[in-house]
Amino acid sequence: MSRSAEVICVGTELLLGEVLNSNAQFLGQELARLGIAHFHQTVVGDNPTRIKRAIALACQRSQLLIFTGGLGPTPDDLTTETLADFFQAPLVNHPEILEDIARKFAQRNRVPSPSNDKQALLPDGAQILPNPIGSAPGIIWHPRPELTIFTFPGVPKEFHRMWQETAVPYLQSTGWVTAQIYSRVLRFWGIPESTLADQVAPLLALTNPTVAPYASKGQARLRISTRATSQETAHQVIAPIEQQIRQICGLHCFGGDDETLESVVGKLLQQRGETLAVAESCTGGGLGQRITGVSGSSTYFLGGVISYTNAAKRDLLKVNAADLEQYGAVSAIVAEQMAAGVRSQLHSTWGISITGIAGPDGGSETKPVGLVYIGLSGPQGTQSFEYQISPLRGRDWIRQMSTSHALDRLRRQLLADES
Amino acid sequence: MSRSAEVICVGTELLLGEVLNSNAQFLGQELARLGIAHFHQTVVGDNPTRIKRAIALACQRSQLLIFTGGLGPTPDDLTTETLADFFQAPLVNHPEILEDIARKFAQRNRVPSPSNDKQALLPDGAQILPNPIGSAPGIIWHPRPELTIFTFPGVPKEFHRMWQETAVPYLQSTGWVTAQIYSRVLRFWGIPESTLADQVAPLLALTNPTVAPYASKGQARLRISTRATSQETAHQVIAPIEQQIRQICGLHCFGGDDETLESVVGKLLQQRGETLAVAESCTGGGLGQRITGVSGSSTYFLGGVISYTNAAKRDLLKVNAADLEQYGAVSAIVAEQMAAGVRSQLHSTWGISITGIAGPDGGSETKPVGLVYIGLSGPQGTQSFEYQISPLRGRDWIRQMSTSHALDRLRRQLLADES
Repeated sequence: MSRSAEVICVGTELLLGEVLNSNAQFLGQELARLGIAHFHQTVVGDNPTRIKRAIALACQRSQLLIFTGGLGPTPDDLTTETLADFFQAPLVNHPEILEDIARKFAQRNRVPSPSNDKQALLPDGAQILPNPIGSAPGIIWHPRPELTIFTFPGVPKEFHRMWQETAVPYLQSTGWVTAQIYSRVLRFWGIPESTLADQVAPLLALTNPTVAPYASKGQARLRISTRATSQETAHQVIAPIEQQIRQICGLHCFGGDDETLESVVGKLLQQRGETLAVAESCTGGGLGQRITGVSGSSTYFLGGVISYTNAAKRDLLKVNAADLEQYGAVSAIVAEQMAAGVRSQLHSTWGISITGIAGPDGGSETKPVGLVYIGLSGPQGTQSFEYQISPLRGRDWIRQMSTSHALDRLRRQLLADES
Repeated sequence: MSRSAEVICVGTELLLGEVLNSNAQFLGQELARLGIAHFHQTVVGDNPTRIKRAIALACQRSQLLIFTGGLGPTPDDLTTETLADFFQAPLVNHPEILEDIARKFAQRNRVPSPSNDKQALLPDGAQILPNPIGSAPGIIWHPRPELTIFTFPGVPKEFHRMWQETAVPYLQSTGWVTAQIYSRVLRFWGIPESTLADQVAPLLALTNPTVAPYASKGQARLRISTRATSQETAHQVIAPIEQQIRQICGLHCFGGDDETLESVVGKLLQQRGETLAVAESCTGGGLGQRITGVSGSSTYFLGGVISYTNAAKRDLLKVNAADLEQYGAVSAIVAEQMAAGVRSQLHSTWGISITGIAGPDGGSETKPVGLVYIGLSGPQGTQSFEYQISPLRGRDWIRQMSTSHALDRLRRQLLADES
């Protein structure tokens, strides 16, 4: 039988739902990426009897047991001593652990308390799995042949660092990792997941690399994955498929991996030496917030106007009062005047605007909740675009979709200019 | 031995980390609230042998087994048939389930496929646990005396509805719930969790109700909890303690339960018939977005200016060019002029402004990353407040803290006016 790993998360706070168990998800992703089989995850409270039963069961069926949680200084942190007890190993004091804790505490003008002493006690034969940021180290231990135990603290930031810096290299050097999975994510806007899946249907049947569609927050994605021994080999398998997908999907594909609509728009503006201003009604500043969430956005983003009332649209954006009266604040013509107005007020290359009905109230038969107009004003003139966003998913969703549509309109315009 | 519940989440997507197991957290919170003991959570993949082993283990130690996932129409959805197989119960067809699925599909202009047929097959003796929104119903089943099994689909929205509408009433009517836990959360701003805990230290030792401090996103909270047979009894225990805490903490306590700084500020403005405008620099619209995230905010929020450049501050907010030059954009005087400027431009009762250095670049020795000024302008004049927010947690954190400080300053001013 081939070897497999198993995850045991220790902590009554997990059973009580006070903490979301993101560590189990992280380990699932990592073990999948490293190509290590993994069939069970267990959560137990801070109870030595139940922890021991979980150990007994796990070491019957798995060769790598990964524990998270229960390494802190308090009496209900029991993982280390319960493991030692189960495998009948004495606990050995490691003074260097306490020295390290004292050093870290000193940086925050604190001193260790007597309760920290027990964090220096590890089962006889266990190696220290160093914690570069927190007080609790973990262990790498072989209590018997063909069995490896890792322990990690429950704090995700500490656990992730320890996993990447020590556990992964250990697994790579001990034959657990032969080839790992490399993935590239392509991101799309303006095309639903189902349409995207239809367009690339033949590629979804591939076995190496695999291509899998998924969607989150209205954004369709394709994940191209391959099992390979190096990043370079993986790239050779993935790149031609990425190119095919980009040819099929054209402008719908806006980026890959960690890119966002706002980071892509920012990069394009920066390359062109152009600037942007925004005029927001129903999104109330959400578009500006997304744009300025990108570090360095001050090189191309000048600012904007949140025009939540008709008066603000007239006074700050020079929207025509008669048009506001005749067509209403949520209309194509007002969106266009908002975009042109903010562009002119802030002397930017581009102005984008959003006006719509975010709900839950304020909709009518002719202007239902979810109706949104995007205005786009640039050197060649001003246009507007109408969207009907589903009201079923609520106010936040409508506002979020609106800012994405606005960024996407500008992105397509910038790319069209270049072709 | 008293009875306990156990959670078994089925799905290879959970083991692969593709989905975060929020269902386990939800069940943990709910079982704790209902006072039902719960010592184990297990995740298994879509594998009948391993699912059966998990059932065998769970029904040795628990009397209520709660399954999530594996109820869909695809061949790897195996929960129902594996349960039937384990307890050697035949599967019985329930035509009313397929009729219900067909009705739901029709609303979306779809028709069920042959693969949906198996969703109508339930173990002999199992009751339907209705799914009001999705296609997959669950079951309530007693395969043997003293053992109850619930199954739910993995989709959180469907699972939550089914849990609240059918499972909770079932548990209440079958003796599983004798008294449940009622909680009231008090929310604080402007006081760190540790200081808050010191101030209310004697209350933290109470046993009924219990008072527990915690913090999230810089916001300290106290949870007051009691086990009671009704909401009214709980209120009698909780209310006097809440009153004591509010007396001790004064204005630091901004609200309870689902209230936010922006909803509390909105309520105060609405009561007073006053209006608000914002001027944002480093937050780029994030303050406006929070304010307008509250439905109905258009009755008091007029809009604002995102002044990301000095030119925007001068042109749109009438900030003095010489002051900008002499003191810099991140200064008390500019914050005050921004707040006064936006108040005057938008004719609002109140103007609040934010100018600061969100980083990661742009800091200096005298003006480090995290330095933020809040301006507040109202009928009695204009003030500013200086904050040094820790840069360690990054740009998003600094921006988030800045908008909270701004809302809190206005809240305190509005409450001071009233006293």
